[in-house]
Amino acid sequence: MKNIGVFFKPDLRNIALRFAEKLKEKNLKISFFSSEVKDIVDNTDVTLIIGGDGTVLKAAKFVSSPIIGFKGGRLGFLSSYTIDEFDKFLKDLEKKQFKEDKRQFFKVKENNALFLNDVVALKEPHQKMVDIEVSFNDGNFYFHADGLVISTPTGSTAYSLSLGGPILLPNVRAFVITPIAPQFLASRSVILPEYEEIVVKTSFKTHLIVDGIDCGKIERFSVEKSEKSIVILRPFDYDFSKSIKEKMGYGKNYFK
Amino acid sequence: MKNIGVFFKPDLRNIALRFAEKLKEKNLKISFFSSEVKDIVDNTDVTLIIGGDGTVLKAAKFVSSPIIGFKGGRLGFLSSYTIDEFDKFLKDLEKKQFKEDKRQFFKVKENNALFLNDVVALKEPHQKMVDIEVSFNDGNFYFHADGLVISTPTGSTAYSLSLGGPILLPNVRAFVITPIAPQFLASRSVILPEYEEIVVKTSFKTHLIVDGIDCGKIERFSVEKSEKSIVILRPFDYDFSKSIKEKMGYGKNYFK
Repeated sequence: MKNIGVFFKPDLRNIALRFAEKLKEKNLKISFFSSEVKDIVDNTDVTLIIGGDGTVLKAAKFVSSPIIGFKGGRLGFLSSYTIDEFDKFLKDLEKKQFKEDKRQFFKVKENNALFLNDVVALKEPHQKMVDIEVSFNDGNFYFHADGLVISTPTGSTAYSLSLGGPILLPNVRAFVITPIAPQFLASRSVILPEYEEIVVKTSFKTHLIVDGIDCGKIERFSVEKSEKSIVILRPFDYDFSKSIKEKMGYGKNYFK
Repeated sequence: MKNIGVFFKPDLRNIALRFAEKLKEKNLKISFFSSEVKDIVDNTDVTLIIGGDGTVLKAAKFVSSPIIGFKGGRLGFLSSYTIDEFDKFLKDLEKKQFKEDKRQFFKVKENNALFLNDVVALKEPHQKMVDIEVSFNDGNFYFHADGLVISTPTGSTAYSLSLGGPILLPNVRAFVITPIAPQFLASRSVILPEYEEIVVKTSFKTHLIVDGIDCGKIERFSVEKSEKSIVILRPFDYDFSKSIKEKMGYGKNYFK
C-alpha cells in the first residue's frame, strides 16, 4: 500500500493536510488530494476519506481500491477510525493489520446511479400522498404513503431505521423496502433477496434521491444489485454489532 | 405421484376420509392416513396435510416428499388450497401443474429439534424480565425482555410479525431476531445471514418453544440452518405477495 488517495470534506482540509504530511513522512505516495469527486483518480492502493458517512458515500463509488473513513467526534457506520486515531491507523497500516468489510453497491437502472445506502422516492411537502406500486419477480405490493425507501443492508441503519425498519447485518444478501408514513397500517419493512429487480411506479412524479443526492423527479424506476462492491478496511477489533451497540445503545449490556 | 400420504388435524377426520375416497377413485395409493405423527411413513410421492399452519408445522418435519396443505376457511401461509378446492387440486394433480415453493428448516442444536417457523425463549408470567445474550460469529447483542423469537423467513409472518418484525420473502437467506417486550427501546428486529450459528444465553432458565412445541426450560441453546428443506406444492398462480395482501391487507391495492 504505497499509493494513497485522500478525499476530504471541504471544512476538514486542514486536518487532511496534516494527515498528508504524516503520510509523506512515511514515504507513501499521495495519488490525489481533493474535496472534489472530479479530482479522484482511481489508481490507489487505498483511499482515505476524511469526513462523515455522507463524505464516504460521495467518494466510494469513484474508487475501486479499499477505503478507510476518518470521522471527527464519534465513529460513523462507514468510518473506521476517528480523526484522533490517525497515528493508530498508521501503525495498523505499517503492520497491514486490517479486517476487510465488504459492502455491496446497488444501482438505479435508468440512470446507472450507484448507491451504498438507499434510494428514496419522496413527494414534495405540498403534495398529497402518492400511490406506489413495488413489483418484483412474481409479486408486487402497493403503498399509499409520502414515499418509500429501498435500502441495502448497509443503509438499513440509516433512513430505513429512522422509519422503523430492522437492522440487517452487512453480509445479509437482501434489500429492505420501508414505506414513509404509509396509510392503512402497512408500515412494516419487506425484505427481498438481493437478486431481485425491483420496479417502483408512482401515481405522480416524485423526487428520486440516491444516497442523499436528488436526481430529479421521476414516475418509474428500477433498482438491482450492481457489479460493484467496495472493501472498507477496519481495525482488527472491529465488529458491526459493537458499532450498533455504541452508536445506538441497541442490544447493549446495561448490566455489567 | 402415485403414492400419497394423508395427515390431518383430528377434528377434520371426516373431511380427510372424503378426500381419501376421492384419491382411491383416481387409483392413487394411500401410504398412510393418520392424525398422529408416529404413523407417518416417509415413502410418499406427496403428502397431503389437512389442517391449518400448525398441522403443517407438526407433520412437515417427518416427511421428505413435497407437501400440500388444505385448510378450512381462509388460506394459511403454509396451505396451498382451501378444503373446498380439493377438486381443483385433483385436476392440478392430474396435469402435474404445481409451482414448487421451497422452504428451509433450521434446528436447535442441543436437541436436534427442527423448525420451519421459529424458536422462542420465553419467561413464565410470574417471573421478572430476563437478560438475554445473543451471540454469533464476530458479535453479540444483549436484551432485557420477556423473551426472544428467532424466526426463519417462513416464520417472519407468524409470531415475529406480531411483535413488530418485518416481512421476509421466503427466498431470503436469513434469520430474524425479534425481542419480546424489550426494555430500553431496543425493539427492532435484527436480520442475520442464515449461515450464522446463533447462541442464546438467558440469565435464568426460560421455556424453549420450537415451532409452538414447549421443549422444557433451558439456559443456553444454539440454532443453525438444518440440512433439511421441504417443497410446498402450490397452485400455478400462487404468489407470496398475494397471500400477504389477501391475508393481512398489507401492501394491497385499495384504489383499483
